Amino acid sequence: MATKTAGKQDTKSALLQAGIDIMLQKGYSNTGLQEVLASLGMPKGSFYHYFQSKEEFALEIIRQVDAEYSATILRMLRNPQETPLQRLKSYCLWGEKEFLSQDCRKGCLIGNLSQEMSDQSEVLRKELASVMEKRVNLFARCIEEGQESGEITKSHTPKQLAETLINTWGGTIMHAKTVKTKDPIDSFMTVMFDFLKAKPH
Amino acid sequence: MATKTAGKQDTKSALLQAGIDIMLQKGYSNTGLQEVLASLGMPKGSFYHYFQSKEEFALEIIRQVDAEYSATILRMLRNPQETPLQRLKSYCLWGEKEFLSQDCRKGCLIGNLSQEMSDQSEVLRKELASVMEKRVNLFARCIEEGQESGEITKSHTPKQLAETLINTWGGTIMHAKTVKTKDPIDSFMTVMFDFLKAKPH
Repeated sequence: MATKTAGKQDTKSALLQAGIDIMLQKGYSNTGLQEVLASLGMPKGSFYHYFQSKEEFALEIIRQVDAEYSATILRMLRNPQETPLQRLKSYCLWGEKEFLSQDCRKGCLIGNLSQEMSDQSEVLRKELASVMEKRVNLFARCIEEGQESGEITKSHTPKQLAETLINTWGGTIMHAKTVKTKDPIDSFMTVMFDFLKAKPH
Repeated sequence: MATKTAGKQDTKSALLQAGIDIMLQKGYSNTGLQEVLASLGMPKGSFYHYFQSKEEFALEIIRQVDAEYSATILRMLRNPQETPLQRLKSYCLWGEKEFLSQDCRKGCLIGNLSQEMSDQSEVLRKELASVMEKRVNLFARCIEEGQESGEITKSHTPKQLAETLINTWGGTIMHAKTVKTKDPIDSFMTVMFDFLKAKPH
């Protein structure tokens, strides 16, 4: 019985992972459930043993991506070996590397689904909004630490700077995904980190 | 004969406008051609008298949106009654008003299609990339004027500042579309215009 439950959980995890991969390539609407099943060699129709609907599947995908991603962000934004500003830069350099390793494709699933689904599904929108709020808070805490140590500009509140950083990054990745070069990211790195650095009096 | 051609052109324009409205609500993949035709009371199957494919339809939609939007942007960014920085602000306030009038829905079709289609259609991606490049240049020219008059910061090149402004705006609208409040736009207005303003020495 325990094995059966574990087996079911494993299959569910595998479905979520396959869903993440395909949804990141194609978006929500273009992701076919049969394609997800086929990628795991599972029979047609078995999807509904695990999820009630495509929407519920996407909801769990968002939670899964958020859990993995939040852990990665936290590890970087609390790295005691670096100063707060260095941590923010490390995060962006990591994001750049990931994005370039995918040939300027895909981007961030949370951003992609926000753009595609915020007007289509209130269930998904609410989940995406709460993920975004959490991210803003994670970045705001790191920025606050940098403001306290005098490394990061106090021109605006930690929340305002965190929102600016996150939104600029999201728009930059969208731009780079469209032009398929890293030029927008280069501009971002230069402008954003000059901006965040505390200015000498 | 002339009337027939004019009639065909009118129908094509009506199809494009209906396509813009529906694609802005639902995205490319979720836009059904039958729905576009039905909104104009046109019979099923008549679409292919006007466009070879859905992709070609979207391509012409992008061109149409770009033409209208570029005219609006140019009118604002060259307004002789305002300084360059005021013009940039007027543009953003206009965009905010449009977005709020749609209850924080839809956003910008160019941004939405970039996110959704850049990895799906090379034809659409190339068109979207050229629209973006054009926009960056329009904003860069206005910023350059403001730098020359001493109103806008010379911390970075006009192109870098234009990209930052456009990308931050795109990411901000995406964020606001997800949380369905204007808070991210308020942050943007405060932070971005403080940033763009030339600092006293």
